[in-house]
Amino acid sequence: MYVAILAGGVGTRLWPSSREALPKQFSDITGTGRTMIQSTVDRLEGLVSLSDIYVITGRRYRHLVLEQLPGLPPENVIVEPSGRNTGPAIGLACAHLHRRDPNGIIALLHADHVIQDIEAYRTVLRQAEEAARNDYLTLLGIIPASPHTGYGYIKRMGEPLPGSTQLPVYAVDRFLEKPDRATAEGFVAEGSYYWNAGNFICRVERMLGEFERQLPALYAGLRTIGASLGNGTEQAVLDEVWSTLPAISIDHGVMEGAERVAVVPLDAGWNDVGSWDALEEVISLDEQGNCLVRGNTLVVDSSGVIVSGGQRLIALVGVEDLVIVDSGDALLIGHKRRMQKIKEVVERLRAEERSDLL
Amino acid sequence: MYVAILAGGVGTRLWPSSREALPKQFSDITGTGRTMIQSTVDRLEGLVSLSDIYVITGRRYRHLVLEQLPGLPPENVIVEPSGRNTGPAIGLACAHLHRRDPNGIIALLHADHVIQDIEAYRTVLRQAEEAARNDYLTLLGIIPASPHTGYGYIKRMGEPLPGSTQLPVYAVDRFLEKPDRATAEGFVAEGSYYWNAGNFICRVERMLGEFERQLPALYAGLRTIGASLGNGTEQAVLDEVWSTLPAISIDHGVMEGAERVAVVPLDAGWNDVGSWDALEEVISLDEQGNCLVRGNTLVVDSSGVIVSGGQRLIALVGVEDLVIVDSGDALLIGHKRRMQKIKEVVERLRAEERSDLL
Repeated sequence: MYVAILAGGVGTRLWPSSREALPKQFSDITGTGRTMIQSTVDRLEGLVSLSDIYVITGRRYRHLVLEQLPGLPPENVIVEPSGRNTGPAIGLACAHLHRRDPNGIIALLHADHVIQDIEAYRTVLRQAEEAARNDYLTLLGIIPASPHTGYGYIKRMGEPLPGSTQLPVYAVDRFLEKPDRATAEGFVAEGSYYWNAGNFICRVERMLGEFERQLPALYAGLRTIGASLGNGTEQAVLDEVWSTLPAISIDHGVMEGAERVAVVPLDAGWNDVGSWDALEEVISLDEQGNCLVRGNTLVVDSSGVIVSGGQRLIALVGVEDLVIVDSGDALLIGHKRRMQKIKEVVERLRAEERSDLL
Repeated sequence: MYVAILAGGVGTRLWPSSREALPKQFSDITGTGRTMIQSTVDRLEGLVSLSDIYVITGRRYRHLVLEQLPGLPPENVIVEPSGRNTGPAIGLACAHLHRRDPNGIIALLHADHVIQDIEAYRTVLRQAEEAARNDYLTLLGIIPASPHTGYGYIKRMGEPLPGSTQLPVYAVDRFLEKPDRATAEGFVAEGSYYWNAGNFICRVERMLGEFERQLPALYAGLRTIGASLGNGTEQAVLDEVWSTLPAISIDHGVMEGAERVAVVPLDAGWNDVGSWDALEEVISLDEQGNCLVRGNTLVVDSSGVIVSGGQRLIALVGVEDLVIVDSGDALLIGHKRRMQKIKEVVERLRAEERSDLL
């Protein structure tokens, strides 16, 4: 099994810790001492060797990947010339892997997801790999912790597929777009719906076959790129072809129309830390319900506060339900239930050309 | 007229900007570009020359006074060997002034008060000086802006004293301790009560006479100290005598039992910035009612917030009624109506021996 880690995103919802020059996946958002991409690789230890791990990212982040993952072979960093959504990015990874091992299995993971129960996660990965060897395009389906309206959902069929050795594996019935609240509540109550977090495992040839069948133009581009690998024209061909590829997501472009799609339920404390208020779902709280992620915080009569501090002392006096982030050069103080407005901060910094803070 | 400025206090209620090593009066709390003691001296310009201004402070703050008031003669900094309340401090200032000019008038002011209407303030000072020349011990009575329960009050007699040339001057009926809320509301409604902020003007000999009559032991000590001034034994005598003086306030020790006490009403936007939430009384608010004292603040959907920032950007998202102070090495985030709890922060820092933050 090979792993391809998508690490090209530039999120703004974790500003000021996630920056254009240092996106979330290269930061230690949860205060573990390891960045998110380091933790992503750490939890594969013993399951996949570093030489079998690939990272797909933007050019400006290549050095961060190599710095943060010191044992990773430099040739395993696959650089996207520009962000063109997940379809071309995953296709590019498949082109590289197919050249190395046409019979390989690819596990597509994201660099910025948190997993709390690593053993449970590894068991699910092993089961998904088994299903992939049986030629299923196998998704990890997150058992929903809440009726979240920010994710797409996967509906499974009623009975498990026969033959899985460790955990039940289900055929996928259908994919559902981000639901409204009432619909999401129905999904959670019903019990056969999972969050689609975009993690999947399959044979590389299987994925390329889906590209060929469903996205022939993208597939043709990938063939051209694949043929150039290692012959000296690789970079020139990639730069030329890349901008012609359709910027389509893997979900819309492949998953929704694919055959033999399966799902393995994942119950391992998964979280994509999509905003600061998610931190209290992954970090234990103090007796007053404060989530003190890092730094030196002195709490007086305060509760429900999330603090990601820096060098300086942060003293709280009589406050509730805040998010406080000290990144050194900027300080965010927000209400826990209004953090979606953080995009206005970033937009205004952009309008003011404060590139030092973006 | 000579001015003696009391600058020996070490307040904790404006932590983290007020520190043991740099108390409030030596900080620019209101973001004017001048420290509070500098502003205190600035507003006397043209009324009293620097050579006639004395500052009473602790030994560790002498260099701060000289740094912040560059034209002040070094001999005008009167060092208290230790804090022994306002009675001995004012007595010491009188002993120095009496040696220089037995017929002098002393205006006793505080280094950490804000005045918004400087012209009105100067007119009151001039009127109070006139009353002092007529041998009144003349207080500035702050017309109360609210039924504050944190100040003592001065009750005036009904009719002004005859003969004042600019503003009405009243004989003082009596002094009242800090009242409860209902009593304070009655005072404000009645109209003849003022906050006693401890500012007064009188002849130096008049004040020494009150010491002699009401506090003979303190007076004897001041005589001993006064006799030593300039004869080479000054420091040794001061150190020896000082610790024997009764640590009594000027209000209890002198004012309450004094004769010929007068009050000039002061309506000039006086504020002693006794806590961070007082800043919104002295600094104009933005359209959302935020009090942005200093620094670089980006406000999204927030109101009623007081921000005293530092170098770094502070972004507010959906918060209300907070006090936020960034002193560089520490950050305070409190609720505006719970700032009295700040003393717990300071107490815990003391218990943890965080002298770097005290």
